[in-house]
Amino acid sequence: MAHITPVLLCGGSGTRLWPLSRKSYPKQFVPLMGKETLFQASARRLHGQELGPDGELGFAPPLVLTNSDFRFIVTEQLGLAGIDPGAVLIEPEGRNTAPAILAAASHLAASDPEALMLVAPSDHVVPETAAFHAAIARGLGPVREGRLVTFGIHPDRPETGYGYLELDAPVADGAPQALLRFVEKPDANRAEAMLASGNFLWNAGIFMARAADMVSAFRAHAPEIFAPVEAALAAARTDLGFLRLDPEAWAQAPDISIDYAVMEKAENLSVVPFSGEWSDLGGWDAVWRESGPDEDGIVTSHGATAIDCRNTLLRSESDRLEIVGIGLDNIMAIATGDAVLVADMSRAQDVKKAVEALKAKEAPQATAFPKDHRPWGWFESLVVGGRFQVKRIMVHPGAALSLQSHHHRSEHWIVVEGTARVTVDDKVTLVTENQSVYVPLGAVHRMENPGKVPMVLIEVQTGAYVGEDDILRYEDVYARN
Amino acid sequence: MAHITPVLLCGGSGTRLWPLSRKSYPKQFVPLMGKETLFQASARRLHGQELGPDGELGFAPPLVLTNSDFRFIVTEQLGLAGIDPGAVLIEPEGRNTAPAILAAASHLAASDPEALMLVAPSDHVVPETAAFHAAIARGLGPVREGRLVTFGIHPDRPETGYGYLELDAPVADGAPQALLRFVEKPDANRAEAMLASGNFLWNAGIFMARAADMVSAFRAHAPEIFAPVEAALAAARTDLGFLRLDPEAWAQAPDISIDYAVMEKAENLSVVPFSGEWSDLGGWDAVWRESGPDEDGIVTSHGATAIDCRNTLLRSESDRLEIVGIGLDNIMAIATGDAVLVADMSRAQDVKKAVEALKAKEAPQATAFPKDHRPWGWFESLVVGGRFQVKRIMVHPGAALSLQSHHHRSEHWIVVEGTARVTVDDKVTLVTENQSVYVPLGAVHRMENPGKVPMVLIEVQTGAYVGEDDILRYEDVYARN
Repeated sequence: MAHITPVLLCGGSGTRLWPLSRKSYPKQFVPLMGKETLFQASARRLHGQELGPDGELGFAPPLVLTNSDFRFIVTEQLGLAGIDPGAVLIEPEGRNTAPAILAAASHLAASDPEALMLVAPSDHVVPETAAFHAAIARGLGPVREGRLVTFGIHPDRPETGYGYLELDAPVADGAPQALLRFVEKPDANRAEAMLASGNFLWNAGIFMARAADMVSAFRAHAPEIFAPVEAALAAARTDLGFLRLDPEAWAQAPDISIDYAVMEKAENLSVVPFSGEWSDLGGWDAVWRESGPDEDGIVTSHGATAIDCRNTLLRSESDRLEIVGIGLDNIMAIATGDAVLVADMSRAQDVKKAVEALKAKEAPQATAFPKDHRPWGWFESLVVGGRFQVKRIMVHPGAALSLQSHHHRSEHWIVVEGTARVTVDDKVTLVTENQSVYVPLGAVHRMENPGKVPMVLIEVQTGAYVGEDDILRYEDVYARN
Repeated sequence: MAHITPVLLCGGSGTRLWPLSRKSYPKQFVPLMGKETLFQASARRLHGQELGPDGELGFAPPLVLTNSDFRFIVTEQLGLAGIDPGAVLIEPEGRNTAPAILAAASHLAASDPEALMLVAPSDHVVPETAAFHAAIARGLGPVREGRLVTFGIHPDRPETGYGYLELDAPVADGAPQALLRFVEKPDANRAEAMLASGNFLWNAGIFMARAADMVSAFRAHAPEIFAPVEAALAAARTDLGFLRLDPEAWAQAPDISIDYAVMEKAENLSVVPFSGEWSDLGGWDAVWRESGPDEDGIVTSHGATAIDCRNTLLRSESDRLEIVGIGLDNIMAIATGDAVLVADMSRAQDVKKAVEALKAKEAPQATAFPKDHRPWGWFESLVVGGRFQVKRIMVHPGAALSLQSHHHRSEHWIVVEGTARVTVDDKVTLVTENQSVYVPLGAVHRMENPGKVPMVLIEVQTGAYVGEDDILRYEDVYARN
């Protein structure tokens, strides 16, 4: 059985699915389609043993590439999915796909040059898992011959939002074929022509290779990437189980995609055609398409009602929010508790303009959610008044907030789920559901969850200033300042 | 100086401005245009002395007609506007305008048959107050001759949503003219023809008369209304300063408008033309029009951003909510914290369908707001969990909640503004900002605001059931069960 390490690229911060995808918590971590997040679904798709038509596939624990802000989201979501991460590499900054993939390849090759790797974005939709496994299995032959395999999707429309792969012959029965060239995102006419010719596939950005072969390809075709990435790996440091690449070396790596840096130059390339459904969910129009519009072209979420509409996407992203559309045509409207997007369906690629406009007016909705994820869990502000704020705080089992104090506020804590261990100055107490604790202004305090189930408490802050930056940290298991 | 009693009709529960107007708190009580609510603006428009071109107008305290649910909203909003209500008559149920106006006329005539009354809806927009006062002043002559005066608005478009008044001659210089007939809401062709003829005005539903003359008109033309309304007044009872009309008698009054019941039959009618701006804000398209669209036809509220839009209304009704429109044409989108309406501008009259659809799925947003107004103030649910709920509660100075207990929940109260007097079983304590109180399950308790400023507290409920109906009331100054 082939043993393949999934390399999940998880550092993106897409704004085209705002308001559901924001810089602080982007689309790969959101349950956009179904109950799992896209990242969880991507990890699950590449998880398990004896998969493929003949049971010839088995996946090793994934290697995840992400950035520092998302590292605890990655481990939390893998944990909830019951998948053990093999390694989590932290990119000091986003440098596109080439440096990230080389870092993964080099990390794997260091322990086993023969290791097989499958690189995949973590924000795509591939509903037909068995068919996808079959395509991966078809790629094993070329990979074992030392080739780099890329996967191409059968186009079903003249899409202008994707790059294409040109083959030297019409796409056949799914067997690996030779690649003629990569084609940039086309205009509409060119896209029509490519769809008609039958020699083109969409470039899905999914690659498979032996780790050592991938490293060799970089060494041959992209030496300007090779050196800084090797240095960043050599100087990487381990931090709470994460592998942090060295920032100084990493900053020397060019910001470039693997297509440009390696694939367009390499000659040992094979393409495996994949005829199953696939989408990069690159905009709300893609979400609408992939969600299965009814005969009137309507897609509605729970909490959404369409009256006399056509070709319309209506989504409510909160249990306490109803959205109603009346007489709409070709409109998409997505509502969260703190932000609403309403756009013509043809303007899906302009959603980033909404984010830019909100950034310009310094609205927090541009980049952040009311729910703020931290290493220990999350909190959300429920209401802010003149001299008070109310928060809901969730602490994971075994997790702890930093030991801290505030200059301007007192806090009342009421536990509503689970059990907290609370430190206030020299006193440590266990506080359980329906019990409360008072933390006077200036007191050194800490909140922990010593239990086996999540702990939820309501915090009522009162004082002249209730901003997040009124905090003095004395000790922090997550090494924050 | 003429002394006129404004009669404000305030019982409506319009659904066409959902989600901002809901049955529990309809549009007249909402700050739809500017900072004051429509009701407050209506009361202020008919408030003051020595008004009109020659200082010939003076207004008595208003007589308000409303229903039981809105009685405390009426007094609270008048109080905030600094206007003393002369009387608040409670209609046991809505019976359209005729019975309400007769009740007001009869109530006024009982103490002074010569009293002048000006009947006005409380949900219209009349921005040019001085011009409106001048029109009222022009109506004083006919009123003193014993005529019933109605006000007609110069039409500036072929509106099909209003009734019309037909004059016996082209509309002249604003002087009172004789009325030929009332015209129902027309179709588009008829509306065009009426606009072209110059003999028609919009029926604004505003009337002025001597109270005794109004009563006489009902006695003459609508005896079937006269008897039950007189009986409902005779059996009315006073309750905390409100005059509650007798429900049994009131139920006998036909559900009919004053136009049908009296005005179309009366012969002593005069029309005062009014050329100032006026709108009944009968839909979001009217709000868009009255809000002054820019040259691209765009109206945005604070918290709303329009990108490449035309003829579009975007409103955010919450400080913590951003709405962004992209590439919209002829769309209106209104977002509150718990509901979003997105509709084609041409479908403004179908917004009631949204309310019907939400009622059918039993969504609370159909009729109620998260903020629930009570005689003593208001509360809103901030979050509901499996076994807990968090509320923000505001209590007016001098107000008190009922003495109560719960079977299924304990409550933690943290005062964040003002001072509370709290009763828990036999103990009464004063609780001020940053202090808390625990109310155990089953304890008999009450919360009061003994102070001079509003008191705000955060209530954290925990227990197996946190519904509103788990309440046993022992004493209530507002006589609720």
